[in-house]
Amino acid sequence: MGRKILIVGGVAGGASAAARLRRNNEDDQIIMFERGPHISFSNCSLPYHLSGIVKEADNLVLMKPELFLKQYNIEARINSEVIAINRDDKTVTVRKTDTDEEYTESYDKLILSPGARPIAPKLPGMEKVNIFTVRNVVDIDNLNKFIKNMKTKDVAVIGGGFIGVEVAENLRLGGYNVTLIEASNQILRPYDYDMVQIFHKVMLDNKVNLILGDKVEKFEEDKVILASGKTIRAGAVVMAVGVSPEINLAKESGLKIGKTGAIKVDKNYLTDDTDIYAIGDAIEVYNALTHTMTKLSLAGPALKQARAVADHINNKTTVNKGYIGSTAIKVFDYNGATTGLNESLIKDLNMNINYDIVRLILSDKVGLMPDAAPMHFKLLFEVPTGRILGAQAIGKGDVTKRIDIIATAIKFAGTVYDLKDLELSYAPPFSTAKDIVNYAGYIGSNLLNGDYKQVNVDKVRELVENNNIIIDVREVHEFEKGHIKGAINIPLSQLRNRIDEIPKDKPIYLHCRTGQRSYNAVLALQHMGYDKVYNITGSFLGVCLYEYYNDIVSGRESIVTEYNFK
Amino acid sequence: MGRKILIVGGVAGGASAAARLRRNNEDDQIIMFERGPHISFSNCSLPYHLSGIVKEADNLVLMKPELFLKQYNIEARINSEVIAINRDDKTVTVRKTDTDEEYTESYDKLILSPGARPIAPKLPGMEKVNIFTVRNVVDIDNLNKFIKNMKTKDVAVIGGGFIGVEVAENLRLGGYNVTLIEASNQILRPYDYDMVQIFHKVMLDNKVNLILGDKVEKFEEDKVILASGKTIRAGAVVMAVGVSPEINLAKESGLKIGKTGAIKVDKNYLTDDTDIYAIGDAIEVYNALTHTMTKLSLAGPALKQARAVADHINNKTTVNKGYIGSTAIKVFDYNGATTGLNESLIKDLNMNINYDIVRLILSDKVGLMPDAAPMHFKLLFEVPTGRILGAQAIGKGDVTKRIDIIATAIKFAGTVYDLKDLELSYAPPFSTAKDIVNYAGYIGSNLLNGDYKQVNVDKVRELVENNNIIIDVREVHEFEKGHIKGAINIPLSQLRNRIDEIPKDKPIYLHCRTGQRSYNAVLALQHMGYDKVYNITGSFLGVCLYEYYNDIVSGRESIVTEYNFK
Repeated sequence: MGRKILIVGGVAGGASAAARLRRNNEDDQIIMFERGPHISFSNCSLPYHLSGIVKEADNLVLMKPELFLKQYNIEARINSEVIAINRDDKTVTVRKTDTDEEYTESYDKLILSPGARPIAPKLPGMEKVNIFTVRNVVDIDNLNKFIKNMKTKDVAVIGGGFIGVEVAENLRLGGYNVTLIEASNQILRPYDYDMVQIFHKVMLDNKVNLILGDKVEKFEEDKVILASGKTIRAGAVVMAVGVSPEINLAKESGLKIGKTGAIKVDKNYLTDDTDIYAIGDAIEVYNALTHTMTKLSLAGPALKQARAVADHINNKTTVNKGYIGSTAIKVFDYNGATTGLNESLIKDLNMNINYDIVRLILSDKVGLMPDAAPMHFKLLFEVPTGRILGAQAIGKGDVTKRIDIIATAIKFAGTVYDLKDLELSYAPPFSTAKDIVNYAGYIGSNLLNGDYKQVNVDKVRELVENNNIIIDVREVHEFEKGHIKGAINIPLSQLRNRIDEIPKDKPIYLHCRTGQRSYNAVLALQHMGYDKVYNITGSFLGVCLYEYYNDIVSGRESIVTEYNFK
Repeated sequence: MGRKILIVGGVAGGASAAARLRRNNEDDQIIMFERGPHISFSNCSLPYHLSGIVKEADNLVLMKPELFLKQYNIEARINSEVIAINRDDKTVTVRKTDTDEEYTESYDKLILSPGARPIAPKLPGMEKVNIFTVRNVVDIDNLNKFIKNMKTKDVAVIGGGFIGVEVAENLRLGGYNVTLIEASNQILRPYDYDMVQIFHKVMLDNKVNLILGDKVEKFEEDKVILASGKTIRAGAVVMAVGVSPEINLAKESGLKIGKTGAIKVDKNYLTDDTDIYAIGDAIEVYNALTHTMTKLSLAGPALKQARAVADHINNKTTVNKGYIGSTAIKVFDYNGATTGLNESLIKDLNMNINYDIVRLILSDKVGLMPDAAPMHFKLLFEVPTGRILGAQAIGKGDVTKRIDIIATAIKFAGTVYDLKDLELSYAPPFSTAKDIVNYAGYIGSNLLNGDYKQVNVDKVRELVENNNIIIDVREVHEFEKGHIKGAINIPLSQLRNRIDEIPKDKPIYLHCRTGQRSYNAVLALQHMGYDKVYNITGSFLGVCLYEYYNDIVSGRESIVTEYNFK
């Protein structure tokens, strides 16, 4: 009496859809096909096996087919690859990967959740190195066993996206000598160039050999040869240059593929066949901020799509509000999170949008608490509406909290004015009475009101090189422990007495340690008739972090007399 | 040319208003009067001096008057109590507390930020014990010095509000024998009785002698005598029964006091005198959820009011959206946070509101991560709109994040449907791909749809005593490590085969460890024609936590064969 529902892919989206289908209906026959030997494993946790944080590879498998059958009455067929969809007679052809045996299975409804596969560029000499990818439990188990028995400790990771960075981190934590090679000038694209420098420094600090702006040209015996001529020794090479949606099955069965190269679906995640749904990394989704179709390899959205599909099959209406994309990552003792748009995405998409940024550094909790640490926060908002477009945060503390607050505000089309009013839970071990999110709202409102002007840390080198007037309003003892070359030290506490030293006809750039004192100084100067005054967002701490990595790797002259990261 | 603005009170709100006034205007003369010897200290951090987390009492002082003057050109007069407002000639009378000298000072605008004072009930024998309150740096310094030199280690804390609990925790961490006495049947009123049991247990686990539902009758020599007859030895007694708004000055100068007993202000925090503002713990504010005036002793709102007043004085429009109240607290290794309404408040206010609750337990991060721990979460939402009314969370992990997300959603009048769609930042060290907040949205939506029914942990004792059918769907090995007395063990994995054992004509109550498996079981039974099936929210873990404290202190018979908190 029930329907027969087949699911292609037994991880994240697939397993989640199956469970929800069962909760919606006890009578449906539900069969899930998984090409590999495991269903329902934690893809996002795979890298953590390399450090030993997840001790046994088996632990990554959350549920075995037997239990799935017993608890949910769902049949999960592992080692079973769906190789064709025969849409006319509503069947799929399945090949058992262990025996090569083939058979067909009919369906009333079909859900495609095949995921995305690691991109494997063809490069000369690939046979001369031991190349690995990280897609599933078998992959990570193989990699881990191989490196444990390797003669050397040298591993190269190619690609500075999330997987590449997490693999590099966990290998390093596991005691390996890790080189991370990224062709572009930064890792982790959801972070803007000015923010990501913090992670670049964290990589250096933790002795990951981070190589940016260089490409793999070829491989030689246990060696990676880069375009620059550099040679990297590598007993193992992990390919993590990106993923590509698994669309072959969909494409060969004539289902529509979108311009992004992923499967095209409607609001309810239906393909152009009314009995076939598709979810997860294999589809393209609507970005609610860019208003364009996009690929989104994120676990959260995949699970939401799984639920939506299971509900739609059971005649429950679902709402598709599009996606904004939120990410989180731990990189050694630093945490990062992002949501929505960043500046480089706006530029890459040639988005015709007028925006401004808030960039601030604030203690993540009351400074008296022993583990208080600076949090670096960047918010993008639309001008003149104040509508929040995106945010990025990096620090040792609870950055995901702040980004999740922003992600929530974005879902409600919130503005910087809304952020001012948020009543967030506060006690000294967790935050400050005015949280960084509230401050971001204040600063954004001030900027919209034209209360003051700012320049970002990434412009400071140019300011220094062009001999602009930079005033450091920190106290003398702070200035002495490192400052921007050529900066004039007029502590905020002396500003009003030393006002004669500051010319009125030239642009004045002010900073302190994190930007709060210089903000006060900027306003004081404006009230005293100065009209070309700029606060340097990110301030001295931000400048040090922004400049450090490139100074060190390029050997260029630093614009600070001494770095100070405290 | 500038105006003369006086501020009464130099902590939190007062200091914050002063700084914002200066940023708004360089010409105004700003004078701040503080009765005590310190301005701008971290009230919320005071208890942390008792454990040594904040080592020196002096560290609690964030800014000295000299620096305030130098950096902001703001005069902060300490040891200066404003004893009268002479509204007719727009002056205040100030008494220097060290010399008793009095003088008047004129104002154009006056801001009252006097705070709230600890309630000090008169009790027989108070002279026989060493009584302390915790309002400022002097208080905490005195208390700390006294107990360090005490012959015994016995301290009694009276009052189980935030300050009482934080003082008790920090004294305990400092090695003292602490008794916490609370007259009502629970500590920390922003938590409902079912949730707060977790904290009651945490107190016991950390060897705080927590006494609930008992009152101080009198004091004897180094002893607290309770109404029950119990005698508590106490070399020092900390009074933390609550705070009362400092309204004397306002009242004596004829300013309007609200029904709550706090100063009445308008949207812009103006009193009924157009030149006098009031902010912080001394005023009553509009609760945007109860639509009533309320007292709110919270740091965040005070700082926001300070800014609003400084802006209003400078002709900047501000918006007053009312308050929802969000709180956070650390209690030993557990964290808690709340926002908005809770059930007891709804009942206390006789609010005519139809609501339901989501109560769930979920791992705060991917279970494979070494520090993953259960998070206990309770959400209140309006029926039938789904509008979110409030939430409470307790756990070892990042509870403030989840509550802040809810607080943000409440500010946007969000519903449980909105929570489903939130795209929160995810990586295994921080959360799960579907976060507890998303789950809460799913469950709330399901309840609104009438998909299933639930009973809460606090009803389980009654179910047991009335011999209701409780089915424990955990696996046998889990059941054997402790279960509800009389519960029948039918693991979810055997449910469909053992369906004949479950009668159709009686109500069936199901649970597992955290509620997820039993939720699946409930739906399966419903699909099989059972219509009186209930999921026990909070499940076995919730029941153990809910029952534990009262079992232990009352010696009553437990309803579980063995507690299991894992």
